[in-house]
Amino acid sequence: MYVPIILGTARIGRQSEKAAKYMLAQTKKYGFETELIDVRNFRIQATDNSKQSAEAKILNEIVKKSDGFIIVTPEYNHGYPGELKMMLDLLYEEYTGRVVGLCAVSIGPFGGTRVVEQLKPVMTELHMHPIRESIYFSKISDTFDENNNPFDKTLDDRVKKFLDELSIYAKALKETRKN
Amino acid sequence: MYVPIILGTARIGRQSEKAAKYMLAQTKKYGFETELIDVRNFRIQATDNSKQSAEAKILNEIVKKSDGFIIVTPEYNHGYPGELKMMLDLLYEEYTGRVVGLCAVSIGPFGGTRVVEQLKPVMTELHMHPIRESIYFSKISDTFDENNNPFDKTLDDRVKKFLDELSIYAKALKETRKN
Amino acid sequence: MYVPIILGTARIGRQSEKAAKYMLAQTKKYGFETELIDVRNFRIQATDNSKQSAEAKILNEIVKKSDGFIIVTPEYNHGYPGELKMMLDLLYEEYTGRVVGLCAVSIGPFGGTRVVEQLKPVMTELHMHPIRESIYFSKISDTFDENNNPFDKTLDDRVKKFLDELSIYAKALKETRKN
Amino acid sequence: MYVPIILGTARIGRQSEKAAKYMLAQTKKYGFETELIDVRNFRIQATDNSKQSAEAKILNEIVKKSDGFIIVTPEYNHGYPGELKMMLDLLYEEYTGRVVGLCAVSIGPFGGTRVVEQLKPVMTELHMHPIRESIYFSKISDTFDENNNPFDKTLDDRVKKFLDELSIYAKALKETRKN
Repeated sequence: MYVPIILGTARIGRQSEKAAKYMLAQTKKYGFETELIDVRNFRIQATDNSKQSAEAKILNEIVKKSDGFIIVTPEYNHGYPGELKMMLDLLYEEYTGRVVGLCAVSIGPFGGTRVVEQLKPVMTELHMHPIRESIYFSKISDTFDENNNPFDKTLDDRVKKFLDELSIYAKALKETRKN
Repeated sequence: MYVPIILGTARIGRQSEKAAKYMLAQTKKYGFETELIDVRNFRIQATDNSKQSAEAKILNEIVKKSDGFIIVTPEYNHGYPGELKMMLDLLYEEYTGRVVGLCAVSIGPFGGTRVVEQLKPVMTELHMHPIRESIYFSKISDTFDENNNPFDKTLDDRVKKFLDELSIYAKALKETRKN
Repeated sequence: MYVPIILGTARIGRQSEKAAKYMLAQTKKYGFETELIDVRNFRIQATDNSKQSAEAKILNEIVKKSDGFIIVTPEYNHGYPGELKMMLDLLYEEYTGRVVGLCAVSIGPFGGTRVVEQLKPVMTELHMHPIRESIYFSKISDTFDENNNPFDKTLDDRVKKFLDELSIYAKALKETRKN
Repeated sequence: MYVPIILGTARIGRQSEKAAKYMLAQTKKYGFETELIDVRNFRIQATDNSKQSAEAKILNEIVKKSDGFIIVTPEYNHGYPGELKMMLDLLYEEYTGRVVGLCAVSIGPFGGTRVVEQLKPVMTELHMHPIRESIYFSKISDTFDENNNPFDKTLDDRVKKFLDELSIYAKALKETRKN
């Protein structure tokens, strides 16, 4: 299974990078093939759904090989970062039949629950399939030690459960992409 | 495949019944086993997630046999009917791995797009899997003739496409329920 | 200012009642005229927007006198309780120009953030005006002592800020209802 | 009253420009002071909430003078354009007490209803106050003649109603900004 991690913010000083790197490590350990897809490498200045840009072509190559995605994104004003949306909007039916797991990051106590809710219908419109489990990184500043290990030892278990669900649906959806 | 149609309003004078009956006929014709699940038969006066009520037990029997659901619901003030939500909230992980197709009904021109968006994250939390295609019954009063056939002959084709997608994912998800 | 508190669940064993009673006490203390509007007293079995029922007439009398509302509701499966929606759907333009503050209750750590987000567009469609501040009662079982006082002493201050905002907009909107 | 129109897409070939220019003309005619704020002039490559950029400072000057905003935006994959979100995220409490009217544009029949719903909670978090009325430009390609006049002559009346509501709340909210 090839399930890349999308880091959904390009903001200077972004704390979500820590969460994304942690998810990357856990996903590798779980046995998925993965890599970090950084929206910083998909910086465009306007929505472009022509699919002709270099960014669209690179993303398309990644999507083609993929069985699903994990998105790690902060919540900005109860919604998603603009740069994440522009990147996702580069493609459309190319995403068909990919499972997607949504992880969110917040400075405060609510873990980015709202950006997860706003992304779900967008994912469905992009022909992707959100799973039920999400990982919510609340109070991100206090989540990881200097080696990027979580202080809360139950987090690994929750991620395991998240990856289990992702794995089940990634397998199930593989069949649908043959048609 | 057993894919019942849930009619999501119990309101007197409900026009969604026409849409639900049309979807029932089309779904049968398509070859699915189906039946109409009328929220009128699940009238409760308060949310009850004890799973002990007669209504919960009846719904559970239906869910157990099901491969997925089609929900046909009006949009009330940009949200879902209360009676539909109370019925859905009767159960929880019992829904795991069922595909769901969302159809919406409106008096006006926008076909209930907003209730579909509000239901998607609820479906995901209920462990169900919404498909991308939806059927939007705009201007419901002008949609069907006296034999409940649509005036717009392209509707049948759109429903066919909707059922095709439902069928693909119902099959794919069947595997996941074995675990 | 008359700002009633709507308790949005009729579920047996509801914990939101504690949060609603706390909000009632705080709102009185703040100097608003208020009372508890319990959805249990508006039990209907189906959406009814005829405005002819006894329930609709009682609600209408309350709305007429009101300057705004505080809604205290649990989050059920990432959405609102069906009984709350049915009650709200009893009326429509009668709500025009009322401010509304949304408070949510959860068993888990996220305070019902998702039901607040789902209610906002419903409020707007009902001609009401949600304020930015919300009170999120996370881990409701651990929030109040046996006298219904919060263990976390900062809660009173957050409620004060919430009521300040409510007050500002209740005053501002009063003018609009004269037209 | 100074109520600028934000054109929410920078996409090449954007059709929303026609809708924005029409709204600009109608808003002037109505008697508001207004101008077009084009997201193309706020092109940034990553979310930046430092408020230090040239773009943030220009936007802040506009916001300071404003009584409210009209946003004209297409719906992209059931959500908002990334460039619009990045622009809005430049500021935060600066928006306090501004009314906002949401207009949406779609190629298809549903007028961008979904982007309006997704923006509402974002507006509230940004301390703005969405009105109930929205203008939905469905089938944008068929909406305007070569002089950018709408074929449907009822549109002017609907915009009048939208601006009436905007006007009422812009006036009411003016008072709140004195504090």
